[in-house]
Amino acid sequence: MDDDSRLNRWDRGTDLTLGIASLVFLGSYAAHVLAPGMPKAAHVLFLSLMYTAWAMFTVDYAVRWRLSGEGPGFVRRHWLDTVVLVLPLLRPVRVVRTYESIQRRRGEPLLPLHARVAAYSALSISLLGFSGALAVYQAERSAPNANIRTFGDSLWWTCSTLSTVGYGDYVPVTTLGRFIAAGLMACGLALLGTVTGSFSSWMLQRFSLNEDDRRPPEH
Amino acid sequence: MDDDSRLNRWDRGTDLTLGIASLVFLGSYAAHVLAPGMPKAAHVLFLSLMYTAWAMFTVDYAVRWRLSGEGPGFVRRHWLDTVVLVLPLLRPVRVVRTYESIQRRRGEPLLPLHARVAAYSALSISLLGFSGALAVYQAERSAPNANIRTFGDSLWWTCSTLSTVGYGDYVPVTTLGRFIAAGLMACGLALLGTVTGSFSSWMLQRFSLNEDDRRPPEH
Amino acid sequence: MDDDSRLNRWDRGTDLTLGIASLVFLGSYAAHVLAPGMPKAAHVLFLSLMYTAWAMFTVDYAVRWRLSGEGPGFVRRHWLDTVVLVLPLLRPVRVVRTYESIQRRRGEPLLPLHARVAAYSALSISLLGFSGALAVYQAERSAPNANIRTFGDSLWWTCSTLSTVGYGDYVPVTTLGRFIAAGLMACGLALLGTVTGSFSSWMLQRFSLNEDDRRPPEH
Amino acid sequence: MDDDSRLNRWDRGTDLTLGIASLVFLGSYAAHVLAPGMPKAAHVLFLSLMYTAWAMFTVDYAVRWRLSGEGPGFVRRHWLDTVVLVLPLLRPVRVVRTYESIQRRRGEPLLPLHARVAAYSALSISLLGFSGALAVYQAERSAPNANIRTFGDSLWWTCSTLSTVGYGDYVPVTTLGRFIAAGLMACGLALLGTVTGSFSSWMLQRFSLNEDDRRPPEH
Repeated sequence: MDDDSRLNRWDRGTDLTLGIASLVFLGSYAAHVLAPGMPKAAHVLFLSLMYTAWAMFTVDYAVRWRLSGEGPGFVRRHWLDTVVLVLPLLRPVRVVRTYESIQRRRGEPLLPLHARVAAYSALSISLLGFSGALAVYQAERSAPNANIRTFGDSLWWTCSTLSTVGYGDYVPVTTLGRFIAAGLMACGLALLGTVTGSFSSWMLQRFSLNEDDRRPPEH
Repeated sequence: MDDDSRLNRWDRGTDLTLGIASLVFLGSYAAHVLAPGMPKAAHVLFLSLMYTAWAMFTVDYAVRWRLSGEGPGFVRRHWLDTVVLVLPLLRPVRVVRTYESIQRRRGEPLLPLHARVAAYSALSISLLGFSGALAVYQAERSAPNANIRTFGDSLWWTCSTLSTVGYGDYVPVTTLGRFIAAGLMACGLALLGTVTGSFSSWMLQRFSLNEDDRRPPEH
Repeated sequence: MDDDSRLNRWDRGTDLTLGIASLVFLGSYAAHVLAPGMPKAAHVLFLSLMYTAWAMFTVDYAVRWRLSGEGPGFVRRHWLDTVVLVLPLLRPVRVVRTYESIQRRRGEPLLPLHARVAAYSALSISLLGFSGALAVYQAERSAPNANIRTFGDSLWWTCSTLSTVGYGDYVPVTTLGRFIAAGLMACGLALLGTVTGSFSSWMLQRFSLNEDDRRPPEH
Repeated sequence: MDDDSRLNRWDRGTDLTLGIASLVFLGSYAAHVLAPGMPKAAHVLFLSLMYTAWAMFTVDYAVRWRLSGEGPGFVRRHWLDTVVLVLPLLRPVRVVRTYESIQRRRGEPLLPLHARVAAYSALSISLLGFSGALAVYQAERSAPNANIRTFGDSLWWTCSTLSTVGYGDYVPVTTLGRFIAAGLMACGLALLGTVTGSFSSWMLQRFSLNEDDRRPPEH
């Protein structure tokens, strides 16, 4: 499987670069959204950083398509990668994976499976929530009847949405804002189930472990 | 079990037709609800499509009852089919099943079990939510003190309800609308648990798989 | 274990009677709450039915205590029974259990385990929700600034609470109403987790069963 | 492993003392928050109790660090202990663990695993909720546009938040209050998943046990 190993080598070689590009993309987008009054030069810088990062994602996608040797079926089979290519704001969520695979290659000790899944899902939710709060804030802030008017409100709204609490004190009112919100709910719920499920399995394991540990060995 | 095999043959033979009829029913109902100002001819067309589809569901139910040779107990034992016969708007949710059984017969590769259950439940929720949004919109739009007044509001309300977020910015106020909403909550919650549960199992599997994959084989 | 068998015989002998008494209690309470303007004779009738049922629960508790031969520890060990004795409105939830044990004794075919647990939890939630809606309605209806003013509103509030959607269009405002609501949330969440968990396990079983069923036997 | 056994002996020797100190801390904090108008002497007493308890937590942390012989990595590896040291209001949640380990050492019979995890998580949620309600009340009560103005409102808000119902009738409006709320949601959700997951596993066990129990032994 020489083809597969070339794909694997590509993955290993670009992991870190693409992870950094994802964070640069998120950072530039955040600066673009949160500091609208910055000087024109800074503005151009951040926009070009965003587009450079996006271009890198596109090149990565193209190379992986090529190396996979799969033809047009690749788009459908790797639909998640395709979605992330079109909506690069979702890319930073993959940083969690990058971090894990680097940690593994270095041979650092890993948490137990359930704890790890819980931690990584929680991290993914945080990154997803931050991206979502930025996007909703951008969509809502200039709408005439909006009530999400500061980034703080947007973050608070994100917390109340991703935890499915949903107070309703801040709510998106634009169509774009609601689409982003619906996407956030869908991704957030799936990840939330993963967090709580893994966390609860981990607690059960620890409790049953404790039992075996502390029980005096036959007497 | 000649009787059983006749039932199976009936199922296989009508699967696709009934699946299409379900989608036609949903489409006609959507047109009926969303375009109240359309010409009379179109109106009659959509209504007759709806009733034709419903008639096909009834015939299917009757034939399966007959072939099962079960007597009056059939109604109780297949209560889900009975409910779907009375509320045909729930029928499109079964399209997911039809799609699956056709895919299987063609021998197409299936996703792993947990991923498949997650995907099918997510699809079912989407179809259920679309039907529910239509029904609530129809029930609410002409109520004097309603706040769900456009189909967009109804869809947004459905998202916030099925994810159990429940902002409360849009809420059904008619008795019929609330009954539909309660039904939507009940079905939605059961399906949501299935989505998140299967998704989280799938993630766990992938994580534990990754481990075995990348671990160098003994050295 | 003659003592234990006497307890079992008592349980078997009183199951049905106590189940009926529970439903009579719930019905009388519902009549008492929902028809405040009924004639005095009917009022007295319903109240005496309630107190008779409650007395039967007390006798049952006392006899089981006696037969268990456990001393004062019984109160703590069977704390759930103790709570139900003090709050008899929770008793109807046990009807689900009664129904099951009668069905089993008759040797009627049972649903598969997961489906049964899902069905019984769903039934328990419904009974719990009905009792809770009645109690909250009674606590709220005469409060000066209450917004739950009809039993319909109370039922709708219960649906939105037990599904954890929580629109907030109707909310209890009295201290008693909020205590009942908090209890409802606690019980409801535990039961809801049981419903969705079992339902999702059942779906997974059916999906994996289907696979084995339809797969052509080796060729 | 003499080092480890010294750590264990330290744990066993300080368990009870630290558990009591945690409850004293919580009680003093509650008095401090809920009775702002108390005489100066009482105020000083409660504050000094709080600081004494906190000092004890610090000493315990330092000793355990020393005994572990781990160096600076201890802070990161025991990050949960570090967080609890900085936010001592979270400490009372650990009382549940203390209670369990004492009960075990005394050899008292334990509940089945799932029931125990459900019970302990439920207790932890209650303690967490009480601490959270206090902290949010302290943060909100003097804000000009706050709607959480009494401790009762704060408790009711906590119930509606931890159950993810989220009515939105009471909502924190200060930045500090929202940070506490976000922390409460995160911890609460993880614990809630543990409660409902364990409870539902326990129900399943009891149902499947019942089956084996009551089934007549082969005839």
